[in-house]
Amino acid sequence: MSDEQTHAHEHEHHHGYISDKARYLRRLSRIEGQVRGISRMVDEDQYCIDILTQISALSSALEGVAVALLDDHLKHCVREAIEAGGDTIDAKLAEASNAIARLVRS
Amino acid sequence: MSDEQTHAHEHEHHHGYISDKARYLRRLSRIEGQVRGISRMVDEDQYCIDILTQISALSSALEGVAVALLDDHLKHCVREAIEAGGDTIDAKLAEASNAIARLVRS
Amino acid sequence: MSDEQTHAHEHEHHHGYISDKARYLRRLSRIEGQVRGISRMVDEDQYCIDILTQISALSSALEGVAVALLDDHLKHCVREAIEAGGDTIDAKLAEASNAIARLVRS
Amino acid sequence: MSDEQTHAHEHEHHHGYISDKARYLRRLSRIEGQVRGISRMVDEDQYCIDILTQISALSSALEGVAVALLDDHLKHCVREAIEAGGDTIDAKLAEASNAIARLVRS
Repeated sequence: MSDEQTHAHEHEHHHGYISDKARYLRRLSRIEGQVRGISRMVDEDQYCIDILTQISALSSALEGVAVALLDDHLKHCVREAIEAGGDTIDAKLAEASNAIARLVRS
Repeated sequence: MSDEQTHAHEHEHHHGYISDKARYLRRLSRIEGQVRGISRMVDEDQYCIDILTQISALSSALEGVAVALLDDHLKHCVREAIEAGGDTIDAKLAEASNAIARLVRS
Repeated sequence: MSDEQTHAHEHEHHHGYISDKARYLRRLSRIEGQVRGISRMVDEDQYCIDILTQISALSSALEGVAVALLDDHLKHCVREAIEAGGDTIDAKLAEASNAIARLVRS
Repeated sequence: MSDEQTHAHEHEHHHGYISDKARYLRRLSRIEGQVRGISRMVDEDQYCIDILTQISALSSALEGVAVALLDDHLKHCVREAIEAGGDTIDAKLAEASNAIARLVRS
Protein backbone atom coordinates (compact mmCIF):
# COMPACT_ATOMS: atom_id res chain seq x y z
CA MET A 1 0.00 0.00 0.00
CA SER A 2 2.04 2.95 -1.17
CA ASP A 3 0.29 5.97 0.21
CA GLU A 4 2.73 8.45 -1.29
CA GLN A 5 0.17 10.59 -2.95
CA THR A 6 1.44 13.98 -3.80
CA HIS A 7 -1.72 15.70 -2.62
CA ALA A 8 -1.63 17.57 -5.85
CA HIS A 9 -4.87 19.47 -5.57
CA GLU A 10 -3.54 22.39 -3.59
CA HIS A 11 -5.86 24.91 -5.14
CA GLU A 12 -8.86 22.70 -5.16
CA HIS A 13 -11.68 23.56 -2.88
CA HIS A 14 -11.74 21.97 0.54
CA HIS A 15 -14.77 19.99 1.52
CA GLY A 16 -15.91 21.46 4.76
CA TYR A 17 -15.15 18.61 7.13
CA ILE A 18 -11.50 19.50 6.92
CA SER A 19 -11.51 21.14 10.35
CA ASP A 20 -12.00 17.74 11.90
CA LYS A 21 -9.76 15.88 9.52
CA ALA A 22 -7.35 14.73 12.23
CA ARG A 23 -10.26 13.33 14.20
CA TYR A 24 -11.62 11.42 11.20
CA LEU A 25 -8.18 10.03 10.47
CA ARG A 26 -7.84 8.84 14.05
CA ARG A 27 -11.22 7.14 13.91
CA LEU A 28 -10.38 5.49 10.61
CA SER A 29 -7.03 4.41 11.93
CA ARG A 30 -8.77 2.73 14.87
CA ILE A 31 -11.16 1.08 12.41
CA GLU A 32 -8.22 -0.20 10.38
CA GLY A 33 -6.82 -1.64 13.59
CA GLN A 34 -10.15 -3.33 14.26
CA VAL A 35 -10.08 -4.95 10.82
CA ARG A 36 -6.55 -6.20 11.45
CA GLY A 37 -7.68 -7.55 14.82
CA ILE A 38 -10.47 -9.47 13.11
CA SER A 39 -8.03 -10.90 10.55
CA ARG A 40 -5.84 -12.05 13.40
CA MET A 41 -8.79 -13.69 15.14
CA VAL A 42 -9.65 -15.57 11.96
CA ASP A 43 -6.04 -16.53 11.42
CA GLU A 44 -5.84 -17.86 14.99
CA ASP A 45 -9.09 -19.82 14.60
CA GLN A 46 -10.76 -17.88 17.35
CA TYR A 47 -14.36 -18.57 18.10
CA CYS A 48 -16.77 -17.37 15.35
CA ILE A 49 -19.11 -15.71 17.81
CA ASP A 50 -16.29 -13.61 19.24
CA ILE A 51 -15.29 -12.59 15.74
CA LEU A 52 -18.88 -11.65 14.94
CA THR A 53 -18.98 -9.50 18.07
CA GLN A 54 -15.96 -7.61 16.79
CA ILE A 55 -17.52 -7.24 13.35
CA SER A 56 -20.66 -5.73 14.93
CA ALA A 57 -18.48 -3.26 16.84
CA LEU A 58 -16.64 -2.42 13.64
CA SER A 59 -19.91 -1.87 11.77
CA SER A 60 -21.06 0.52 14.47
CA ALA A 61 -17.78 2.42 14.39
CA LEU A 62 -18.09 2.72 10.62
CA GLU A 63 -21.67 3.94 10.86
CA GLY A 64 -20.46 6.54 13.33
CA VAL A 65 -17.96 7.88 10.81
CA ALA A 66 -20.56 7.85 8.03
CA VAL A 67 -23.10 9.72 10.13
CA ALA A 68 -20.48 12.29 11.17
CA LEU A 69 -19.43 12.83 7.55
CA LEU A 70 -23.03 13.27 6.50
CA ASP A 71 -23.56 15.74 9.30
CA ASP A 72 -20.53 17.73 8.17
CA HIS A 73 -21.70 17.52 4.60
CA LEU A 74 -25.10 18.99 5.46
CA LYS A 75 -23.58 21.65 7.67
CA HIS A 76 -21.03 22.75 5.13
CA CYS A 77 -21.47 21.71 1.51
CA VAL A 78 -25.26 21.60 1.41
CA ARG A 79 -25.68 24.70 3.50
CA GLU A 80 -23.19 26.64 1.38
CA ALA A 81 -24.85 25.51 -1.83
CA ILE A 82 -28.23 26.69 -0.59
CA GLU A 83 -26.85 29.96 0.70
CA ALA A 84 -25.06 30.58 -2.59
CA GLY A 85 -28.30 29.89 -4.40
CA GLY A 86 -28.33 28.96 -8.04
CA ASP A 87 -29.22 25.84 -9.88
CA THR A 88 -26.92 23.36 -8.18
CA ILE A 89 -29.07 23.20 -5.04
CA ASP A 90 -31.42 20.52 -6.33
CA ALA A 91 -28.51 18.39 -7.46
CA LYS A 92 -26.77 18.80 -4.11
CA LEU A 93 -29.89 17.82 -2.20
CA ALA A 94 -30.60 14.84 -4.43
CA GLU A 95 -27.00 13.72 -3.99
CA ALA A 96 -27.25 13.97 -0.21
CA SER A 97 -30.51 12.02 -0.21
CA ASN A 98 -29.00 9.30 -2.34
CA ALA A 99 -26.04 9.01 0.01
CA ILE A 100 -28.45 8.75 2.95
CA ALA A 101 -30.50 6.10 1.15
CA ARG A 102 -27.38 4.02 0.48
CA LEU A 103 -26.32 4.27 4.12
CA VAL A 104 -29.75 3.42 5.52
CA ARG A 105 -29.87 0.38 3.25
CA SER A 106 -26.28 -0.80 3.61
CA MET B 1 -21.86 -32.11 0.02
CA SER B 2 -19.72 -34.66 1.79
CA ASP B 3 -19.74 -33.68 5.44
CA GLU B 4 -17.61 -36.58 6.61
CA GLN B 5 -15.46 -34.46 8.79
CA THR B 6 -13.33 -36.44 11.12
CA HIS B 7 -13.84 -33.84 13.81
CA ALA B 8 -10.13 -33.88 14.27
CA HIS B 9 -9.74 -31.03 16.69
CA GLU B 10 -8.11 -33.10 19.38
CA HIS B 11 -5.43 -30.77 20.57
CA GLU B 12 -6.76 -27.56 19.40
CA HIS B 13 -10.25 -26.43 18.83
CA HIS B 14 -10.69 -25.51 15.17
CA HIS B 15 -13.81 -23.53 14.63
CA GLY B 16 -15.26 -24.98 11.49
CA TYR B 17 -14.71 -22.11 9.12
CA ILE B 18 -11.04 -22.99 9.02
CA SER B 19 -11.38 -24.65 5.60
CA ASP B 20 -12.10 -21.27 4.12
CA LYS B 21 -9.64 -19.38 6.26
CA ALA B 22 -7.58 -18.18 3.31
CA ARG B 23 -10.72 -16.83 1.68
CA TYR B 24 -11.76 -14.95 4.82
CA LEU B 25 -8.29 -13.51 5.16
CA ARG B 26 -8.36 -12.32 1.56
CA ARG B 27 -11.74 -10.69 2.07
CA LEU B 28 -10.56 -9.00 5.27
CA SER B 29 -7.38 -7.86 3.57
CA ARG B 30 -9.47 -6.23 0.86
CA ILE B 31 -11.60 -4.61 3.57
CA GLU B 32 -8.48 -3.29 5.27
CA GLY B 33 -7.45 -1.82 1.91
CA GLN B 34 -10.88 -0.19 1.62
CA VAL B 35 -10.44 1.44 5.04
CA ARG B 36 -7.03 2.75 4.04
CA GLY B 37 -8.53 4.06 0.80
CA ILE B 38 -11.17 5.94 2.81
CA SER B 39 -8.49 7.42 5.09
CA ARG B 40 -6.63 8.59 2.04
CA MET B 41 -9.79 10.18 0.62
CA VAL B 42 -10.33 12.06 3.89
CA ASP B 43 -6.68 13.07 4.00
CA GLU B 44 -6.92 14.41 0.45
CA ASP B 45 -10.13 16.30 1.20
CA GLN B 46 -12.05 14.34 -1.37
CA TYR B 47 -15.73 14.96 -1.73
CA CYS B 48 -17.80 13.73 1.26
CA ILE B 49 -20.38 12.03 -0.92
CA ASP B 50 -17.70 9.97 -2.65
CA ILE B 51 -16.30 9.00 0.72
CA LEU B 52 -19.77 8.00 1.91
CA THR B 53 -20.18 5.84 -1.18
CA GLN B 54 -16.99 4.01 -0.26
CA ILE B 55 -18.17 3.61 3.34
CA SER B 56 -21.44 2.06 2.13
CA ALA B 57 -19.45 -0.37 -0.01
CA LEU B 58 -17.25 -1.20 2.96
CA SER B 59 -20.28 -1.79 5.17
CA SER B 60 -21.69 -4.19 2.62
CA ALA B 61 -18.40 -6.05 2.33
CA LEU B 62 -18.28 -6.34 6.11
CA GLU B 63 -21.84 -7.63 6.27
CA GLY B 64 -20.89 -10.19 3.68
CA VAL B 65 -18.10 -11.50 5.90
CA ALA B 66 -20.37 -11.53 8.95
CA VAL B 67 -23.10 -13.42 7.14
CA ALA B 68 -20.57 -15.95 5.81
CA LEU B 69 -19.12 -16.48 9.29
CA LEU B 70 -22.58 -16.97 10.74
CA ASP B 71 -23.39 -19.45 8.00
CA ASP B 72 -20.21 -21.40 8.76
CA HIS B 73 -20.98 -21.21 12.45
CA LEU B 74 -24.44 -22.73 11.98
CA LYS B 75 -23.13 -25.39 9.60
CA HIS B 76 -20.29 -26.45 11.85
CA CYS B 77 -20.34 -25.41 15.50
CA VAL B 78 -24.10 -25.34 16.02
CA ARG B 79 -24.69 -28.46 13.98
CA GLU B 80 -21.96 -30.38 15.79
CA ALA B 81 -23.28 -29.26 19.18
CA ILE B 82 -26.75 -30.50 18.31
CA GLU B 83 -25.47 -33.76 16.86
CA ALA B 84 -23.32 -34.36 19.91
CA GLY B 85 -26.35 -33.71 22.11
CA GLY B 86 -25.92 -32.77 25.72
CA ASP B 87 -26.68 -29.66 27.66
CA THR B 88 -24.62 -27.17 25.69
CA ILE B 89 -27.12 -27.03 22.84
CA ASP B 90 -29.33 -24.37 24.40
CA ALA B 91 -26.34 -22.21 25.19
CA LYS B 92 -25.00 -22.61 21.65
CA LEU B 93 -28.33 -21.66 20.13
CA ALA B 94 -28.81 -18.68 22.43
CA GLU B 95 -25.31 -17.53 21.59
CA ALA B 96 -25.97 -17.76 17.84
CA SER B 97 -29.25 -15.86 18.24
CA ASN B 98 -27.54 -13.12 20.19
CA ALA B 99 -24.88 -12.77 17.52
CA ILE B 100 -27.60 -12.55 14.87
CA ALA B 101 -29.47 -9.92 16.89
CA ARG B 102 -26.32 -7.82 17.22
CA LEU B 103 -25.69 -8.02 13.48
CA VAL B 104 -29.26 -7.23 12.48
CA ARG B 105 -29.17 -4.21 14.77
CA SER B 106 -25.65 -2.98 13.98
CA MET C 1 -59.20 -7.15 5.31
CA SER C 2 -61.23 -10.33 5.60
CA ASP C 3 -59.22 -12.65 7.77
CA GLU C 4 -61.64 -15.54 7.50
CA GLN C 5 -59.11 -18.11 6.64
CA THR C 6 -60.31 -21.60 7.31
CA HIS C 7 -57.03 -22.66 8.86
CA ALA C 8 -57.30 -25.75 6.77
CA HIS C 9 -53.98 -27.30 7.64
CA GLU C 10 -55.13 -29.16 10.74
CA HIS C 11 -52.81 -32.08 10.28
CA GLU C 12 -49.91 -30.05 9.06
CA HIS C 13 -46.94 -29.72 11.27
CA HIS C 14 -46.77 -26.74 13.58
CA HIS C 15 -43.75 -24.52 13.31
CA GLY C 16 -42.25 -24.43 16.73
CA TYR C 17 -42.85 -20.83 17.70
CA ILE C 18 -46.51 -21.63 18.24
CA SER C 19 -46.09 -21.65 22.02
CA ASP C 20 -45.53 -17.94 21.92
CA LYS C 21 -48.04 -17.22 19.22
CA ALA C 22 -50.14 -14.94 21.40
CA ARG C 23 -47.07 -12.90 22.24
CA TYR C 24 -46.09 -12.52 18.59
CA LEU C 25 -49.62 -11.49 17.71
CA ARG C 26 -49.60 -8.85 20.43
CA ARG C 27 -46.30 -7.48 19.23
CA LEU C 28 -47.52 -7.40 15.64
CA SER C 29 -50.74 -5.75 16.72
CA ARG C 30 -48.73 -3.03 18.43
CA ILE C 31 -46.66 -2.66 15.26
CA GLU C 32 -49.84 -2.32 13.21
CA GLY C 33 -50.92 0.42 15.62
CA GLN C 34 -47.57 2.14 15.13
CA VAL C 35 -48.05 2.12 11.35
CA ARG C 36 -51.52 3.61 11.76
CA GLY C 37 -50.08 6.26 14.07
CA ILE C 38 -47.53 7.17 11.42
CA SER C 39 -50.26 7.43 8.77
CA ARG C 40 -52.16 9.74 11.05
CA MET C 41 -49.08 11.90 11.60
CA VAL C 42 -48.60 12.21 7.83
CA ASP C 43 -52.28 12.93 7.33
CA GLU C 44 -52.13 15.67 9.97
CA ASP C 45 -49.00 17.20 8.43
CA GLN C 46 -46.99 16.61 11.55
CA TYR C 47 -43.33 17.44 11.54
CA CYS C 48 -41.21 15.12 9.34
CA ILE C 49 -38.58 14.62 12.00
CA ASP C 50 -41.17 13.43 14.51
CA ILE C 51 -42.52 11.02 11.91
CA LEU C 52 -39.02 9.74 11.21
CA THR C 53 -38.52 9.15 14.93
CA GLN C 54 -41.63 6.97 14.92
CA ILE C 55 -40.42 5.10 11.85
CA SER C 56 -37.11 4.36 13.56
CA ALA C 57 -39.00 3.00 16.57
CA LEU C 58 -41.16 0.90 14.27
CA SER C 59 -38.10 -0.48 12.49
CA SER C 60 -36.60 -1.50 15.80
CA ALA C 61 -39.83 -3.17 16.90
CA LEU C 62 -39.93 -5.07 13.63
CA GLU C 63 -36.31 -6.17 13.98
CA GLY C 64 -37.17 -7.41 17.45
CA VAL C 65 -39.90 -9.64 16.03
CA ALA C 66 -37.62 -10.89 13.26
CA VAL C 67 -34.83 -11.73 15.67
CA ALA C 68 -37.25 -13.53 17.99
CA LEU C 69 -38.67 -15.56 15.10
CA LEU C 70 -35.19 -16.50 13.96
CA ASP C 71 -34.31 -17.53 17.48
CA ASP C 72 -37.40 -19.73 17.66
CA HIS C 73 -36.61 -21.12 14.25
CA LEU C 74 -33.11 -22.16 15.28
CA LYS C 75 -34.32 -23.60 18.58
CA HIS C 76 -37.11 -25.63 17.05
CA CYS C 77 -37.08 -26.25 13.30
CA VAL C 78 -33.31 -26.28 12.77
CA ARG C 79 -32.61 -28.20 15.95
CA GLU C 80 -35.24 -30.81 15.15
CA ALA C 81 -33.97 -31.22 11.62
CA ILE C 82 -30.45 -31.81 12.89
CA GLU C 83 -31.60 -34.18 15.62
CA ALA C 84 -33.71 -36.12 13.12
CA GLY C 85 -30.68 -36.36 10.84
CA GLY C 86 -31.14 -37.10 7.18
CA ASP C 87 -30.52 -35.12 4.09
CA THR C 88 -32.67 -32.07 4.80
CA ILE C 89 -30.18 -30.61 7.27
CA ASP C 90 -28.08 -28.84 4.69
CA ALA C 91 -31.14 -27.31 3.08
CA LYS C 92 -32.47 -26.18 6.47
CA LEU C 93 -29.20 -24.56 7.40
CA ALA C 94 -28.83 -22.85 4.03
CA GLU C 95 -32.38 -21.57 4.35
CA ALA C 96 -31.71 -20.15 7.82
CA SER C 97 -28.50 -18.48 6.60
CA ASN C 98 -30.31 -16.91 3.69
CA ALA C 99 -33.00 -15.55 5.99
CA ILE C 100 -30.30 -14.11 8.26
CA ALA C 101 -28.53 -12.53 5.28
CA ARG C 102 -31.76 -10.90 4.12
CA LEU C 103 -32.41 -9.50 7.59
CA VAL C 104 -28.88 -8.22 8.11
CA ARG C 105 -29.08 -6.49 4.74
CA SER C 106 -32.64 -5.19 4.96
CA MET D 1 -29.56 25.57 22.65
CA SER D 2 -32.13 28.36 22.52
CA ASP D 3 -34.49 27.48 19.72
CA GLU D 4 -36.66 30.56 19.83
CA GLN D 5 -38.35 29.88 16.59
CA THR D 6 -40.72 32.65 15.74
CA HIS D 7 -41.10 31.22 12.25
CA ALA D 8 -44.51 32.30 11.43
CA HIS D 9 -46.37 29.03 11.30
CA GLU D 10 -49.24 30.74 12.97
CA HIS D 11 -52.31 28.71 12.31
CA GLU D 12 -51.07 25.56 10.82
CA HIS D 13 -47.65 24.32 10.00
CA HIS D 14 -47.45 22.68 6.58
CA HIS D 15 -44.40 20.51 6.39
CA GLY D 16 -43.38 20.46 2.80
CA TYR D 17 -44.06 16.84 1.94
CA ILE D 18 -47.75 17.62 1.86
CA SER D 19 -47.81 17.61 -1.94
CA ASP D 20 -47.15 13.92 -1.89
CA LYS D 21 -49.33 13.19 1.10
CA ALA D 22 -51.66 10.87 -0.82
CA ARG D 23 -48.69 8.88 -2.01
CA TYR D 24 -47.25 8.50 1.48
CA LEU D 25 -50.65 7.43 2.78
CA ARG D 26 -50.93 4.80 0.08
CA ARG D 27 -47.48 3.46 0.88
CA LEU D 28 -48.27 3.37 4.58
CA SER D 29 -51.58 1.69 3.90
CA ARG D 30 -49.76 -1.02 1.95
CA ILE D 31 -47.31 -1.36 4.84
CA GLU D 32 -50.20 -1.74 7.27
CA GLY D 33 -51.55 -4.49 5.01
CA GLN D 34 -48.14 -6.17 5.08
CA VAL D 35 -48.15 -6.14 8.90
CA ARG D 36 -51.63 -7.69 8.93
CA GLY D 37 -50.46 -10.31 6.45
CA ILE D 38 -47.58 -11.20 8.75
CA SER D 39 -49.94 -11.48 11.73
CA ARG D 40 -52.10 -13.83 9.71
CA MET D 41 -49.08 -15.94 8.78
CA VAL D 42 -48.14 -16.23 12.45
CA ASP D 43 -51.73 -17.00 13.39
CA GLU D 44 -51.85 -19.77 10.78
CA ASP D 45 -48.52 -21.23 11.91
CA GLN D 46 -46.94 -20.62 8.55
CA TYR D 47 -43.30 -21.41 8.10
CA CYS D 48 -40.95 -19.07 10.03
CA ILE D 49 -38.68 -18.54 7.06
CA ASP D 50 -41.56 -17.37 4.91
CA ILE D 51 -42.62 -14.98 7.65
CA LEU D 52 -39.06 -13.65 7.91
CA THR D 53 -39.03 -13.06 4.17
CA GLN D 54 -42.15 -10.93 4.56
CA ILE D 55 -40.59 -9.04 7.47
CA SER D 56 -37.51 -8.26 5.36
CA ALA D 57 -39.78 -6.93 2.61
CA LEU D 58 -41.67 -4.85 5.16
CA SER D 59 -38.43 -3.43 6.56
CA SER D 60 -37.36 -2.39 3.08
CA ALA D 61 -40.72 -0.76 2.39
CA LEU D 62 -40.43 1.14 5.65
CA GLU D 63 -36.89 2.27 4.86
CA GLY D 64 -38.20 3.49 1.53
CA VAL D 65 -40.76 5.69 3.27
CA ALA D 66 -38.18 6.99 5.74
CA VAL D 67 -35.70 7.85 3.01
CA ALA D 68 -38.42 9.62 0.99
CA LEU D 69 -39.50 11.63 4.04
CA LEU D 70 -35.93 12.61 4.75
CA ASP D 71 -35.47 13.64 1.14
CA ASP D 72 -38.59 15.82 1.33
CA HIS D 73 -37.41 17.21 4.63
CA LEU D 74 -34.08 18.29 3.18
CA LYS D 75 -35.70 19.68 0.04
CA HIS D 76 -38.29 21.68 1.89
CA CYS D 77 -37.83 22.33 5.61
CA VAL D 78 -34.04 22.40 5.69
CA ARG D 79 -33.73 24.30 2.44
CA GLU D 80 -36.29 26.89 3.54
CA ALA D 81 -34.61 27.33 6.89
CA ILE D 82 -31.27 27.96 5.20
CA GLU D 83 -32.76 30.30 2.62
CA ALA D 84 -34.59 32.23 5.33
CA GLY D 85 -31.31 32.52 7.23
CA GLY D 86 -31.28 33.26 10.91
CA ASP D 87 -30.23 31.30 13.91
CA THR D 88 -32.44 28.24 13.53
CA ILE D 89 -30.33 26.80 10.74
CA ASP D 90 -27.90 25.03 13.04
CA ALA D 91 -30.73 23.50 15.03
CA LYS D 92 -32.47 22.34 11.84
CA LEU D 93 -29.31 20.76 10.53
CA ALA D 94 -28.52 19.07 13.82
CA GLU D 95 -32.06 17.75 13.94
CA ALA D 96 -31.80 16.33 10.43
CA SER D 97 -28.46 14.69 11.25
CA ASN D 98 -29.88 13.11 14.36
CA ALA D 99 -32.81 11.71 12.41
CA ILE D 100 -30.39 10.29 9.84
CA ALA D 101 -28.25 8.76 12.59
CA ARG D 102 -31.29 7.07 14.12
CA LEU D 103 -32.32 5.65 10.76
CA VAL D 104 -28.87 4.41 9.83
CA ARG D 105 -28.65 2.68 13.19
CA SER D 106 -32.18 1.30 13.38
